[in-house]
This record gives sequence, structure tokens and C-alpha cells, in this order.
Amino acid sequence: MRQTQAPRQWNTRAAEKQRRLETIAHLLTEKIVDREAISEVLYGCIASGDRVIAEGNNQKQADFLSRALADLDPERVHDLHMIQPSVGRPEHLAVFEKGIAKKLDFAFSGTQSHRIGTLMMDGTIEVGAIHTYIELYARLFVDLIPKVVLTAAFKADRAGNLYTGPSTEDTPALVEAAAFSGGIVIAQANEIVDDVSGLDRVDIPGSWVDIVVEADQPFYIEPLFTRDPRHITDVQIFMAMMAIKGIYAEHGVQSLNHGIGFNTAAIELLLPTYGEKLGLKGKIAKNWVLNPHPTLIPAIESGWVESVHCFGTELGMENYVAARGDIFFTGHDGSLRSNRAFCQLAGQYAADMFIGATLQIDPDGNSSTVTTSRVSGFGGAPNLGSDARGRRHATPAWADMADDNDPLARGRKLVVQMVETFQAGLVPTFVDELDAVTVARKANLAVPPVMVYGDDTTHLLTEEGIAYLYKAESIEERRAMIAAVAGVTPLGRSADPGETKRLREAGKVVWPADLGVSRAEATRSQLAASSIADLVDWSGGLYNPPPRFRSW
Amino acid sequence: MRQTQAPRQWNTRAAEKQRRLETIAHLLTEKIVDREAISEVLYGCIASGDRVIAEGNNQKQADFLSRALADLDPERVHDLHMIQPSVGRPEHLAVFEKGIAKKLDFAFSGTQSHRIGTLMMDGTIEVGAIHTYIELYARLFVDLIPKVVLTAAFKADRAGNLYTGPSTEDTPALVEAAAFSGGIVIAQANEIVDDVSGLDRVDIPGSWVDIVVEADQPFYIEPLFTRDPRHITDVQIFMAMMAIKGIYAEHGVQSLNHGIGFNTAAIELLLPTYGEKLGLKGKIAKNWVLNPHPTLIPAIESGWVESVHCFGTELGMENYVAARGDIFFTGHDGSLRSNRAFCQLAGQYAADMFIGATLQIDPDGNSSTVTTSRVSGFGGAPNLGSDARGRRHATPAWADMADDNDPLARGRKLVVQMVETFQAGLVPTFVDELDAVTVARKANLAVPPVMVYGDDTTHLLTEEGIAYLYKAESIEERRAMIAAVAGVTPLGRSADPGETKRLREAGKVVWPADLGVSRAEATRSQLAASSIADLVDWSGGLYNPPPRFRSW
Repeated sequence: MRQTQAPRQWNTRAAEKQRRLETIAHLLTEKIVDREAISEVLYGCIASGDRVIAEGNNQKQADFLSRALADLDPERVHDLHMIQPSVGRPEHLAVFEKGIAKKLDFAFSGTQSHRIGTLMMDGTIEVGAIHTYIELYARLFVDLIPKVVLTAAFKADRAGNLYTGPSTEDTPALVEAAAFSGGIVIAQANEIVDDVSGLDRVDIPGSWVDIVVEADQPFYIEPLFTRDPRHITDVQIFMAMMAIKGIYAEHGVQSLNHGIGFNTAAIELLLPTYGEKLGLKGKIAKNWVLNPHPTLIPAIESGWVESVHCFGTELGMENYVAARGDIFFTGHDGSLRSNRAFCQLAGQYAADMFIGATLQIDPDGNSSTVTTSRVSGFGGAPNLGSDARGRRHATPAWADMADDNDPLARGRKLVVQMVETFQAGLVPTFVDELDAVTVARKANLAVPPVMVYGDDTTHLLTEEGIAYLYKAESIEERRAMIAAVAGVTPLGRSADPGETKRLREAGKVVWPADLGVSRAEATRSQLAASSIADLVDWSGGLYNPPPRFRSW
Repeated sequence: MRQTQAPRQWNTRAAEKQRRLETIAHLLTEKIVDREAISEVLYGCIASGDRVIAEGNNQKQADFLSRALADLDPERVHDLHMIQPSVGRPEHLAVFEKGIAKKLDFAFSGTQSHRIGTLMMDGTIEVGAIHTYIELYARLFVDLIPKVVLTAAFKADRAGNLYTGPSTEDTPALVEAAAFSGGIVIAQANEIVDDVSGLDRVDIPGSWVDIVVEADQPFYIEPLFTRDPRHITDVQIFMAMMAIKGIYAEHGVQSLNHGIGFNTAAIELLLPTYGEKLGLKGKIAKNWVLNPHPTLIPAIESGWVESVHCFGTELGMENYVAARGDIFFTGHDGSLRSNRAFCQLAGQYAADMFIGATLQIDPDGNSSTVTTSRVSGFGGAPNLGSDARGRRHATPAWADMADDNDPLARGRKLVVQMVETFQAGLVPTFVDELDAVTVARKANLAVPPVMVYGDDTTHLLTEEGIAYLYKAESIEERRAMIAAVAGVTPLGRSADPGETKRLREAGKVVWPADLGVSRAEATRSQLAASSIADLVDWSGGLYNPPPRFRSW
């Protein structure tokens, strides 16, 4: 029986890779090709219908290569299936408008969020799904194995060894998936050196890389994590004080991840002042899973922070990070080693808490940043903002979420949504139905793009107070707790005052006064730094902010 | 205010590393030390109280180094905090008995499961927690940053580049955590070559490794995943048929992970026969997250399998894997690239289903392999056997778990427990309370070592039938469904026959007859291979089983 089938070829992936590389072998010197030959290289390496990764991650962009991809002739290369952690450059969308690519699986789309929404709704882009980062990496080893990866490095040598400096980010995950499945790895580098002795360190071994090209200009890095303290409002400071007292101190949160908004930046800047006054130093917020936020500098300098593991880097923080090797993960060259895959794992399995903001929350507590006018994707939020049910170690904060004396009770991750009840322009944050439902229907998505589900959310913090959602004993009670802190939004006005009173008496919702936090105290004078210049000062001149943030 | 504190040193980790390395600098030629100097090297690199990783992963063992560690003088080195994915060698426990180490954080303890249980209960080992693998890796970047990593490779060059061959396993995660945090990385290698040209490929860059020593013998690999088809019973075949029809086909399971037991080995061996007869080829079980199980060879050869991403390797499968590059992830050298971190991610975020066995199940469906006489740890099961709540892409099987028409309904991972109602020796699988509760109390664990929680389990399959637990509408109904398939165990005998009838009519539990599966059909003649020799035959002679499995 087992002999009846025709002999099968079992190495077609490797053979096809070899065939493609042979078509361009005359262009290579060792693993290097001339910049001018890049179109010919891409025509040789990419076939219509291929799954192609253009890196496209949160900050670092293989932009020379993605521009070269967008310059190809759609008659010759079309129907590509693009896989991108981040869709961050105009050319990432141009490949769809030109017909070079058809399908997209992605995780984040910061600066392109408006345009990608339009292209999804009108059918120009067929979206597979909007993932969380490590979900997308996971699929690279199962059902989205890539054929070609376009990646970016600071430096490369002629054998293909890559130095990614502080911006390693997604590169190990993306390159590994192709390098070990007969895929082709093409790297752009800002600089090419002769051999490994010219590299500060090796982040990706040369044997994983097929082709290296020197880019026409250094790859673009988006400074996503710089928040100018000047823009932090009194309300954000007020909410940050509530967070520190009512959540961080209440549960003894030691390991954590912050979102990228001004509200969590306010928390970072209150630790050395308000937090110090409360005697919390050494008791909370010690181990961080976070890009190197400039607003964390005062807390680091004041001795609050034991460690920071980073998803990626932040422009201007290079020298500061290198000078704080006890805090950050750095190589022997002194520069940051970021690694988004491990950092997402750290945030998922080893952090007590995730705290971040959102744009819309529904009455069940489901939240999303996807609106009908803006599809920004999720990045890490769904992963960080959910419970790792495989977790089997306890920390005080995690264990504090266990609800009873069941001998098998387990704790859970603290997932905190921190929002003002109204967004800019007096648009209510609390809505009857998330726009995500409409977007899913219009863009033909199998799953509505919810960022954090209500049943994963343990705390909801608004300027009105804190709802300890993990204490809800039923879905109905949970809804009442959400409405209780929804202020004068329609949802908030629908709250039953008697029920709200009961919830407050039961300690399931608290008002600022219950925490001893007053609006009068919540002023900018509480911030450890009130400007970018202050942050530079705290850093002893090591922090070097990008020009757009230099206003002094 | 910010100037009042004494200047702080911010590079103590790097400085201490340099200090330690300088004490042994005279022993190094490039990065190589003589085998005879290993004690001196360890005394120089390790200080009492350090967090030390001895690899100690699922299969590959840095055994030369862990033996050297166990030979140290506890007067000079003591109170180590060992971090080990796997505690697999006698010397891993000897370091505790000798007083060299005090605390242990681990994930799996295959062959040492009896002895480790004793040492935990009598207080010789203070156990932090029993983790799932990627949870332990995650903590290496947050609150368990290691000081020293003892790792193992097939080959190394004098610059420290490592070739781990098919056994890359946990190495990238373990080494990265130390290499970028001022830790010291010491690698044993079976063979040392002069430079990178002598390595088949580079799995770990030399700039991450500090010291290399040639081991006295090749590192030990445990063949954990070889199941001799001769030992598969008719009952296992019967249950495997139910699984294929009632779960794989019912939900269209395409991507999956199998446990290591004989029951799932039976499923692997039924795909090319029973599965083929049912017309399921190409419809189910295409993308695998799995060590290279020899029992998967017939399914691969019959064209069922599109891809297999591996946690680690399996002894004897080297040539077969290398010859099946379209199926397995391999390097340009042809050998497997395993990577447990990415494979666990793949199983968590990209697989439709996890199916495995256990030793005990309680009335709520919680299960564990930990018993009062055996603490085997969990390995990957808690991670693989739970829902990734951050997942945002749909597959048919995943979406099939969504329970209603809620526009925000999401699917979930299929988590299948497949057990006979009695274990060997007529010990009931179904128990009133898991031994894990007692073990937690006796060994002072914060969390009882539950392997898979009941509320994460979607299907329970016994020789009596299948309980579709994801369909339970209440905890009470869930309990009734579990009791309904618990056979003549005390729990099974407590089931209310009327309720069981109702559950069957509602399609919430099914009997074999409902699936059209009969015991008469369930014979060993259904297996695609009935011996190890048959598997060798299927592989065209490429599979080379370890001696202990060669019985012909």
C-alpha cells in the first residue's frame, strides 16, 4: 500500500530557493549586491503570490527595500501576500494600490491608520486578520510561513552577519521563520563592513541571511514613545494619583507594562514625587517591560527601577540606555538589545500588570482603538492586556486577584484600562457598540477588532473613580460597575444611583475621595519633570531628544 | 532635590562580570578553556547566591557542566538559585543534596520526577514554582535575570560561535537572557573547531558566549518522544478513532499539537488508514507543532502533513528530518532548527488544538500529572493547554468554539484531555481532589500544580465517549458532562442516568455508537505501522531508532 504513490520531491522549498538565488548569482559578491541592482534582485527572488514580510515593525522600517518593492512592475510581480508586524510607511500601502500585493496580515499601523482603514473598507486590501505581535510571529511557523523577508540592520558584514544595534525588535522572529524554511532573507544595512571584526556585536548570524544591500539612507525609526511632559494635563495627573494609590499600592504591583499615552507618562513622572511621599519606593513598579520611555528617566535616576526589558528602542535614548547597563538589557558593545518576541512573552507571562488607554469602551467593558475612521491595529495590547492562563507562578499582585478560598483558585494578570470619559472633541469614550463591529462587517473580518475584552479587564479607571471589575460577581454587576465610573456620558447617566451607592459601600468602586486623592493636589507641580528639557537634565545630558521635541 | 543622592554606579553588572572573567583570564585561549580547568572556571564565574541556569532543557543536557557544578565545594559555593527548564539528570538534584544550591525554579522533571518530589516535600529543595516553559523564559527578562548560564552545543569555534544542530531547543532564550544583562555564558561543546568555516551553521553568535569547553563526552539527549507501536492497545485505537471522527473531523482541526502518550501516537498512526478511509486527507491535521515523533512518519509519507515546527529533536530522526526539508524547519546544512520558545508560541497562538493525556482529573475537570509520589512538572502543557486570549485571527476549528450569535463572540483553542477512566493498576483517573492540592501544601507552593484547568478544557475523551465541555452552560452541567464519561469510577457511578440521557440527546456528550465507531473495528490492524521496524520501513531506512527501541 505504502509503495503505490509516485516518488515525491521533499526538498522543493530549498530547490526553489536555490533556483531563485542562481538567477541573481551574477549580481552578488559574497552576500553583497549593489544598491542599483535591487530591482533585479527582487524580481529574481520574489514570485507572484509569495508570502513576503517587509519589516515593517513597530519602529524600525526596512524602508529602502519596501520602496524598492513598491517600484516593481505589477505585471511581473503581483498578488503578494504581505505579512507585516507594522504597516508604517506610505509605500507599505502603495504596493496594494499598485496591485503588487493583494492580501495583508498585520498587527499595527500607527501613522497609516486612516489610509489603511479606507483601503480595507473599499476592498483594495484584503485583510487576513489584525493580530497581536506574537500571534503574527507564531503563525510564521505554522500557517503563514514566509517565502521572502526584507529586513533592516545598522551594519552588516560581507558574510551577512547583522548588527541591529538597539533596534533588534522583531528581526530574530521574522528572519528565523524564513531562514529555516527555505525562504530568502534580504537585509538592508546602513553600513557594510568587511568582516565580523567590524561589527559592534552580532545580532543575527550571517548563515541566516542570503543577501545584503547598503541602503541609500539610514532606515527610518519612528519615535513612538516620547511624551512631552508639557502636554500632561491636571486631569491626567489626578488619574495617575488614583492609579498609584488605588491600584499600584493597593495590590503591590511590582512588574508591569505601560501603554504609550500621556496618562501613563504621568504615572511615570509621579513615582519620584507623589509615590515617594507615599513611601512606595522599593515596594512597587520595580521590574518593567517597556520601550525606553524618556518619561521613565526620573524614576530610574531616583532608584525606583530595577530592570527594564525593551520591545524596541526610542530615538534619543541610546546614550542614556548605554550608560545604565544595570537597568537595561545591553550587549557588550553597550547598546540596547531589544527583542519584541521575548519582551511580549515577558509582558504576558512575567508581568503583574498591563495598564493602557483606549478610544472606545462598550457597556460590557470591551474596548478598542479601531474606529470607522481609523484602523490603528493593536500591536502588543491584546497579548499584554489579557491573562496568561498557562501561568503557574504567583506574585502578590497576581495572587490578589484570586477571588475566594477555593484551594484551586488562581490569580490573574491585572489589566487596567485608564480613560477619560470623553475623548477630545467631547466624543464619549463609552459607546453602545464598538465601531469595531461595523469595521469587521465592512472589511469582511472574521473577528471584530476588539483590543481588550471586557472579561479580561480587571480595573477601569476614569476621572470619576476606579471600578474593581475583577470583584464583579455577575455580568450585570460588572455592567453596573462600568456605568458607575462612566461620568456624564449616556452610559454614565444611565447608572442607577442606588446601585452605585451599594457598589461603593462594597468597595467595588471607589471615588477619589475614598482614596484620599484630591483634585486640588493634582497639579503639574507634582511632576518630576515638566518638560523635555527637564528630562534631559535628569539624565545628566545623556538623553538626546529628536529635533521635533526640542523646543527650548 | 534630584542632586542630593550620592552618585550611583550604573554598570555594576558589567563590572562584576569583567571582574569574574579576569580571575580566570589566564585559563582562556580566545574563548576556550581546558576541560581540566573547569572547576577553577566555575569558582571564578559563580558566586554564592547567584541565579544559575543549567541547561537542563527537555532533551538536551549540559551534563558535563552540571556534573562539574555538582563537584564544587559547598563551602565555597552555596545557596545557588537554580533555574532549569528541565531537571533531567541525577546531578541536577545532587547540587541540592550537597548544599551547593538551595532554590529551584523549573518546568519539567521527566526522569527525576520521583526523587524531586521527595526532596521538595522534605524541604531539601525550596521550589519557587513549577512553570510552563515560556513562563520560565519570560521571567529571565523580568524577575529571574540569570547571572550564569551553562549551555551545550554540538560544535563551537574559538570565537564562541555555537552550532546546536537539531537540538537548539531552549538555548536562544536562555543565552540571550544572560548575554545581554551582564551575565556569563559558558558553553560545553562536543567538538571545537578553529573558526566559523568549520561550523555547519551558526545557531548562537559568538559575541553572546564568554567561555567554551570541550566536553568529555557528547551531551546526553533523552529520547522522550519515541513510542513503539507494539505497545498501543486496542482501547487506545478505539479512543483514537473517536478523536478523529468526533473532534478532528467534527471541527476541522488543521493545526495542532499532540502530547507524548500512546493514545496520541495511535491517532498519528491511524491518519493514513482510518483517516484516509473517512476521506479526511487534506482536510485535517496539516500543520503541526511537535517534536519529530517517529509515529508521524507514515502520515508524512502519505502526504497528510504540510509542516512540522519542532520544540526540540528526537534521537534517530536526524536523517529523516534532513531528507524532508519541505516539512520540517531546517537550516542550509540540512539539520533541524528546533526552537522551543517559538514553538511554544506557535502552539499557543497559531494552533487550533492541543490534545494530551493526564494522570488525574477532578470533578470540575482540573487535571494534573503531579501526584504525591511523582512531581514530573508540566513542560509545555499549561501553555499549550489553555486559550490564548490575545488571539485575534480565526480558523474554522477555533471559530467553531464560539457559543452564540453575539457580534463580539470569539472562538477559542480546542483543549482536549484524552484519558482512560482507569490508569494502570486500576487506579481511577477521576478523583475527588487532585494530589496537586496536597503537594502544594506539603512543598509550600503558592499555586497548586494544576496542569490544565477545567475551564480551559474544551473536550474530555474517555473510552466511554466524548464530553463537549465547551458546550456546557453552567458549572453544574459541566460537572455532569464530566461524570457522564467517567465510566465505572466512583465519579462515573455518581452520574445521574437521566441527566446523562439528556446530555446525550442535546449532543453535549456522545457515545462511540453515536459516532459510528465500534470496538470491533478498533484493532491493531488499523495502525499504519505496528512496530518500530515498520516505521523504519516507512521512512525508507532514514529513521535510525536508538538501540533500546531496536528489538528485531
